[in-house]
Order: sequence, then C-alpha cells, then structure tokens
Amino acid sequence: MGPLKGIRVLDLTRVLAGPYCTMILGDLGAEVIKVEMPGSGDDSRQFGPYQKGESAYFMSLNRNKQSVTLNLKSDKGKEMLRELVKQVDVLVENFKPGTMKRLGLDYDSLKEINPGLIYAASTGFGQTGPYSERPAYDGVVQAMGGIMSITGQRGGKPTRVGPSIGDISAGMYTAIGVLSALYHRQQTGQGQMVDIAMLDCQVSMLENAIARYAVTHESPQPEGNRHPSIVPFEPFETADYPLMIAIGNDKIWTKFCKTVGREDLINDERFKTNPLRLQHYDIIRPIIADIIKQKTNKEWQDIFNQADVPNGPINTIDRVVHDEQVKARNMIVEVEHPVAGHLIMPGVPVKLSETPGEIHSPAPVLGADNEKIYSSMLNLSPEEIAQLKEDNII
Amino acid sequence: MGPLKGIRVLDLTRVLAGPYCTMILGDLGAEVIKVEMPGSGDDSRQFGPYQKGESAYFMSLNRNKQSVTLNLKSDKGKEMLRELVKQVDVLVENFKPGTMKRLGLDYDSLKEINPGLIYAASTGFGQTGPYSERPAYDGVVQAMGGIMSITGQRGGKPTRVGPSIGDISAGMYTAIGVLSALYHRQQTGQGQMVDIAMLDCQVSMLENAIARYAVTHESPQPEGNRHPSIVPFEPFETADYPLMIAIGNDKIWTKFCKTVGREDLINDERFKTNPLRLQHYDIIRPIIADIIKQKTNKEWQDIFNQADVPNGPINTIDRVVHDEQVKARNMIVEVEHPVAGHLIMPGVPVKLSETPGEIHSPAPVLGADNEKIYSSMLNLSPEEIAQLKEDNII
Repeated sequence: MGPLKGIRVLDLTRVLAGPYCTMILGDLGAEVIKVEMPGSGDDSRQFGPYQKGESAYFMSLNRNKQSVTLNLKSDKGKEMLRELVKQVDVLVENFKPGTMKRLGLDYDSLKEINPGLIYAASTGFGQTGPYSERPAYDGVVQAMGGIMSITGQRGGKPTRVGPSIGDISAGMYTAIGVLSALYHRQQTGQGQMVDIAMLDCQVSMLENAIARYAVTHESPQPEGNRHPSIVPFEPFETADYPLMIAIGNDKIWTKFCKTVGREDLINDERFKTNPLRLQHYDIIRPIIADIIKQKTNKEWQDIFNQADVPNGPINTIDRVVHDEQVKARNMIVEVEHPVAGHLIMPGVPVKLSETPGEIHSPAPVLGADNEKIYSSMLNLSPEEIAQLKEDNII
Repeated sequence: MGPLKGIRVLDLTRVLAGPYCTMILGDLGAEVIKVEMPGSGDDSRQFGPYQKGESAYFMSLNRNKQSVTLNLKSDKGKEMLRELVKQVDVLVENFKPGTMKRLGLDYDSLKEINPGLIYAASTGFGQTGPYSERPAYDGVVQAMGGIMSITGQRGGKPTRVGPSIGDISAGMYTAIGVLSALYHRQQTGQGQMVDIAMLDCQVSMLENAIARYAVTHESPQPEGNRHPSIVPFEPFETADYPLMIAIGNDKIWTKFCKTVGREDLINDERFKTNPLRLQHYDIIRPIIADIIKQKTNKEWQDIFNQADVPNGPINTIDRVVHDEQVKARNMIVEVEHPVAGHLIMPGVPVKLSETPGEIHSPAPVLGADNEKIYSSMLNLSPEEIAQLKEDNII
C-alpha cells in the first residue's frame, strides 16, 4: 500500500514537473486527486504518441491518480475547491506565480481554511526574484542553469540533456519538500508552503562544477564521454554497439590487460599507473580501441563481467526495457488502461521493505472520478453533479 | 532550523550518491553524523581542486554534517557503531551489497537493536538482481540506463550528462525513500529498509522516452538542442554567446516577429503556424539565425524579456553563479571553513515558508566531532577516547 497511505493530495499540476512529483507521492501510497479543466484537461493528454487515442506520455506520468474536472475560473468552482482543500493534506500546483492568487486560491488564502495544509508550488524560477513571472520551459532552464555548458562532446557545443531534467529534478525536489513539510506537520500540526524553482534545482545539481569554479574561477567545459581523471574510462566501439569500460584503478588495469591477452601493457612504463595512462592517453586509447572492435558488445560484457572489469553497454531504450536487471527490479511495469489497453512504463524506484510502493491503477480518463469524489467529499447528489456538468463547472 | 529538526542520521556514505542524500537531510535540519575511516576518511576528501589543502568537492557536498572516525573492521568499532545505532533514527550507507552484512551491520542485524531504524542503502544496481554485486560507477550507469542514448547532437554520438546524474538522482530518491519511511514510522513506530539503485533511478527519469518506445517500438535518438515539435525552440548564436529562444506558440511568434522588425514573417504562408514552421524548419532557421547574430546575448535578453518572448542564455558556470535570479534565491551561498576559508557552493533549493532549510555549518574536518559525539552519545571519557585513537579504532 505504500508508506504514504492516508495522505490525500489535491493535484492541480499539469504536464511534467508537478505531475512527476505527484506521481512519486501516488506511487508511494498517497491518494492523489488530479483536478483538471473540463474539456481538455491536462495539456499532456494531447502529447503523442497515442495508443488507441490515449497519450502514452500522460498515461505513464499519471498512473495511480484519480481525475476530477473543475472550472477554477468560476465562482462555484472556486467554492468547491475550497471545500476539497479542507479535507486534504497537500495541494500541489505548477501555475505561473500570481495565478493562484488571482483566483483567490493562493497559500495565504487556503491556510485560513486548512491551517495544516502543505501547499507546494513548482515553477520555472520560483515565487520570488526578478525572473519569477517568466514562463517555465525545460529547455530555457537547462540553458540558464548551466547543465548544457558542461554536457557535450569535448570541444563541442553545449548540449541539452535528453530527458526534461529541468522538470524532473523540480518534481523530485517538490516531493522532498512535501515529505519534509509533512514530517514537520506531524510533529507540530503546522502546515506551510513549499516553493520550488526549476532553476534552483539545476544549480543544486551542478555541485562539482560549482566547486571547481569556486576554486579555479574557470568555467568547466563539456568533458565529452571521457572520465576527466581516470583512464581508460569511456565508451569504446565494439563490433556492434558501444561499451563503456571503467578501469577505475591499477588492479583493474592488470585484470583488463590479462583478460584481453595484453599482459605486455600491465607494466608498460607509459601505462602502469593511472596518472601515466592519463599522461599517455593519446597512445593508449587507440590501442584499446583496436582491441575492443574485435568482438561484439555482448561478448565483451560476458568476458569482462567474468573477470570483474567494470563495464556497461550504451543501451538504447529498447535494450534498457529488456535488460535483465531492470526487469528483475520491476522497473518496467505493464499497466492495463481501460481505453488504451496494455502499456509499459517505468516502475517505482523507491524500494521499501515493509511498505513497498506499487502501480495499483492506470492513469485516469478525464473526470473519471467526478461522481466518486464529489459525492463522497462534497456530498453532492447525482442530480447536482449533472447540473454542474451542464453549467460547465465540471 | 529546518523541518527535520530532531532527526538524527548516521551517515556511512562516501563520495557522491549517499552524501548527496545526507546533504539534503542535513540542509533541512536533520543532525547528520558522518562516520569515516580513520586516516583518510571519505574518498572525496582527496578529490581536487583544493583550497588550502581542503577538497572543494568534499566541502560543497558535506556542509552541515559532523564527522567521527571509526574503524568498522575492528570488533570494538562495530560495537561502538551498534551503540550509536540505538540512538539514531536513520542510517544511510552506500557500500557494495554484502559489505555491511559481512560486518554484521546489515539491516536485519541492526533492526534487532533499533526496531524503528530506517536503514537506507544506495548502490549501483540495488540489493537484488543479477547485477547487484557490480561496482557503482556513474558513467557505467548513465550508459546502461539509456540517458546517453537520448542525449547529444542530432545524428551525433550518445553523450554523457555533464554532472554525475546517476549518483545525484540516486541521492535524491534515497532522500525521498528516507522521508517516506519516516512518515510511516511516525504513524506506526515501524522502521524499514530503503533500497535504492542508481540504475532504477535512471529508468525512472526516462519517462517520456519509454512512453514513446512503448507505443512506437522505436528507440528514441538524441534530439540535439532543438525541441522535437516546436519551432523555433533552440539555441541561436548571438554576437557573443548563444541564446535559447522558445517560441512556444503562434501568439509568441507574432510578438517575436514584431520585436525583430520582421512583420512580414508573421503571416508568411510557410511560417504562420507551428506545424508550418516545423515543416519549413530548414528555411526559417537560417533566417532567424542571421537576425540573432546581429546583437549580443544581453541585448537580446533585454529586448525579448521586454516583449514577453521566452528566452534564456546558455550560461557557463561563471554566469550561473552571478545570475541575478540565482542570487535572489540564495542559490549561491558563501560558507566559511575553518581551514579553507571562504568557499561558495549551491544553496538549498527546497524553500519552506515556516521551517526553511539553511547552511548552518561548513563541512567537517576529519574526525572533528569525535570528542563531542563519543562523550555525549557513548559516555566515553577523554582518556578512553585517546586510547581508542591510539588503538586505531577511531
């Protein structure tokens, strides 16, 4: 059932950063009620690719959540939201700063009706500061936050990180903020606001690069795929697809040389220690490259794993999905959706021994839980609910 | 003081993944007691660059923590650790699976002496599965976990993410696991084990790429710096350094064209909607590129921010550190270290309204808190402590 059983989350978030946070909470057992605009709902319902008309993107991120529709621009909708707020522990939103205030649904307003409420707001730049009101785009945040300047081929262009790491890290830090605030509330009864900025989270992840700059006053550049101070530690082309080889110390160097039948290299004056290998990188790299081209990726994995030489294939997504460790850890889960049918998606990475998380239900169809939530939490009758639908309140 | 005031963490972790987790907990007010090998301590104390002989890497990651030395290979050391375990809420370690068991300090052993203990283990591949005993290297995990296969220039090589995202995301998920388990314990008194694998965390971050694969059965490739479905949304060279421009919809396109004095492009049959711009990318891209080269990055920022056209500079680390928003959000903090002097480092990204986190103390010198911790928690006298030091137990 998960460690967060009993926690109720009102989820006003859309697209990625906010939904990633509430996905983590839902996976760990919280009850998540997604509040969506009538008609189209969360924007990501329109992101392809689709399976039987349903967005795979939406289904992957929004499993374990319920959906109600609610028009927050209407007075009736606001009143209904306030009633719901009285009965939840957490509210998460990722609107532009100022939006919720204009609706009269900001933290200062809502804490009056629920003093224990934990109100988490995830935005591009935060609730404060000169850029606060700028729109949040993952690509812009990756640019401004420095990660692009240290990602890429050596001597190459700054490069965007493939997944939307700006959104995802903000989603994770929002979950950390919510859980910390919940702990404090359990001790004291006191709720509070959690203010997370995508840009702040990027800075937090730069740890080593900022430490380097702090001392040298030089901006780190993209390192490429090579480890900056260990040789050899990088991808090598095999007969089919690349393999990362990580010869982390001189003991492993000895094992590696024996394994590839090049004992002559073990004590070679140019290569016998890591500093020497670093110094003579341009000589040793091509020697190893020629050796590794001789066999396939899988052949080398078997050989090196047997010999305890750290290595790993550069997996494309198909290979990740079928990897035996990934499968053994239940990190690819097949979920049955009422409209789309079977869909695979990432599992729950937080493994708890007593209260494991799980994917217990698929992503909701838009407004699927209107009757259930509005009758149980707001005591509305079927007729009242039907009227609200007609009036476009839900 | 932080929301986690009163929580005590015994921190056996080294280098990055584990210390990043305990940094988050310490930043949010938990008391973190770092347990290090006598002599050299955490390996990262030897990672350059250095400031007055102290590692900037270590100082950045280990602020807010206390340090004791303890030789866990000795029987006396193990006994002392067990005594400490009785008095803490959380233990975090990132040894290879099996290591703590061989020391008799695994979760099953320790829960006997502290049933409420939350025991978090962060490893490369997890406590279970066929790869469980493999060493954890960020570069190998980035390769195997798929992120490299979707990062890089379009048509280019798979590319490593600059910061050690394998370690960092595991550190964040370990914190999420610990906090969730703490919530459960507050409800029930029950402790448990948290098992986090770097590889599992990578899979979790692939969300969109796996969703895409799930439907199309094609492995996504590196997209480069272009947004896959919005045009224009990518970096452009200015007169000095690149600027990310994000023209997210047709309204913004109109604003952009007016701002750059090219009203003729607004309703151009080839460019007037996003699908059209996508279709004629090869024509529109060079047109915009020529315009943007005409002014500096800062000039364009001012112009576009005035006009509400989303944009952001590709900041190198020096620019990130001096950015006005980053500074306004206290995301670069200067910390005074007793040996190294002043050092800047990332601040605390989780902003809480009632119980804000903070950097209250610098990283500890090795064993700085031996007297304090061993006298207060284990009731050892100064003589006993001196003897333990002589015997190389601490």
